[in-house]
Amino acid sequence: MPAESGRLYGLGVGPGDPELLTLKALRLLRAVPVVAYPAPENGDSFARSIVAAWIEGHQCEIAIRFPMRPGPPPVEIYDGAAAELAAQLDAGHDVALLCQGDPLFYGSFVNVFTRLVGRYRIEIVPGVSSVTACAAAAEIPLLSRDETLAVIPATLDEDQITAQLTAGDTAAIVKLGRHLPKVRRVLNRLGLLETAVYVDHATLPTQRVALLSVMESDEAPYFSMVLIARSRGADGRS
Amino acid sequence: MPAESGRLYGLGVGPGDPELLTLKALRLLRAVPVVAYPAPENGDSFARSIVAAWIEGHQCEIAIRFPMRPGPPPVEIYDGAAAELAAQLDAGHDVALLCQGDPLFYGSFVNVFTRLVGRYRIEIVPGVSSVTACAAAAEIPLLSRDETLAVIPATLDEDQITAQLTAGDTAAIVKLGRHLPKVRRVLNRLGLLETAVYVDHATLPTQRVALLSVMESDEAPYFSMVLIARSRGADGRS
Repeated sequence: MPAESGRLYGLGVGPGDPELLTLKALRLLRAVPVVAYPAPENGDSFARSIVAAWIEGHQCEIAIRFPMRPGPPPVEIYDGAAAELAAQLDAGHDVALLCQGDPLFYGSFVNVFTRLVGRYRIEIVPGVSSVTACAAAAEIPLLSRDETLAVIPATLDEDQITAQLTAGDTAAIVKLGRHLPKVRRVLNRLGLLETAVYVDHATLPTQRVALLSVMESDEAPYFSMVLIARSRGADGRS
Repeated sequence: MPAESGRLYGLGVGPGDPELLTLKALRLLRAVPVVAYPAPENGDSFARSIVAAWIEGHQCEIAIRFPMRPGPPPVEIYDGAAAELAAQLDAGHDVALLCQGDPLFYGSFVNVFTRLVGRYRIEIVPGVSSVTACAAAAEIPLLSRDETLAVIPATLDEDQITAQLTAGDTAAIVKLGRHLPKVRRVLNRLGLLETAVYVDHATLPTQRVALLSVMESDEAPYFSMVLIARSRGADGRS
């Protein structure tokens, strides 16, 4: 890890509202010569859009482009991204890799991190995650006292989701997409459909909060989740 | 909900590093005439200390003081705090209630919220939670692909903690305190002790990250957690 090589920052930029950027992420974003971010094959990066107002013309930008098809992206994309960032770091340039929400809360940062850790100085700057942002939008207490929280991807099969939901208190089912009918089925069977709250685009102008039981759509955008609060109430009042 | 009454903000101020405040929390904190925060019976408020540099002399401060003994605080404290904040709101003053980490992620905000919701305009501003902050400090991927995360209070009994740990992938055991020996016992029995990482005071100058298996103490500070990552790896590389 040569001292003269650049430093990699995994920058959590929050769930979508540009004002939910942290002061630390803002300081680092403005200080680095190289800004990298995930992006679709064609089109704009959501992570970049969150901080667009702060990116300056003289900064070098690296878009890591992912094919828009189901399933895990090919490893070559992460290999290529890691090599491209490594070249910048080797040249002594600090690099900020923008991460929507929090860098370690899903997302592509981990795949770059595992390829570069040990070779370069890396700092991870936590951000506001989608789960707390959605809870704030829906005004749902996530955790009180001795309650548990489960974060469950809707990509799991029905039995796995059922097991997760029955094991704990509050649950956040993420990555809904085309799995919404399956999630609705599981919640209905467990008698939890009436308490489930659907949130998409939390903290953005397009934010939507609705009871899942009255939603008619069978598909949800990627940036959506269902929250199920079975809070026993912090002091018996809620 | 009279239009002329003040607005209550539940302000997440992040895990401890003052730079992990969001731009939105900073803007609102500087705009309100009244700043409230939880505090011990005697001594300083941790939430206030995070944003101390931004509080101005002309702002009215309300400390909600909690007795430092185990178990849930008496409901009278929340009743009293809600009444005190309601008086400010009735007088037309906006109030920021500071919440360490995120307002809905444990903490006392929920107990005030449930007493005032419906009577006043309330906005919850999410913050960086302790779980993502500790993961960043320990460089532990919380969630990749179709993995689950369980947040588990160490206050639960051994069987409950065991059930939670065996149900999912990554786990964060919070509220360690005097429950550390119990947590160690459970993890040892499940063969998870070697992979467990202990973090306290994440993002503060006193931050400590250590393998739980080499820690000798039988007690942990309140602001601590154990992370257990059983990541299957985002693409088989980690």
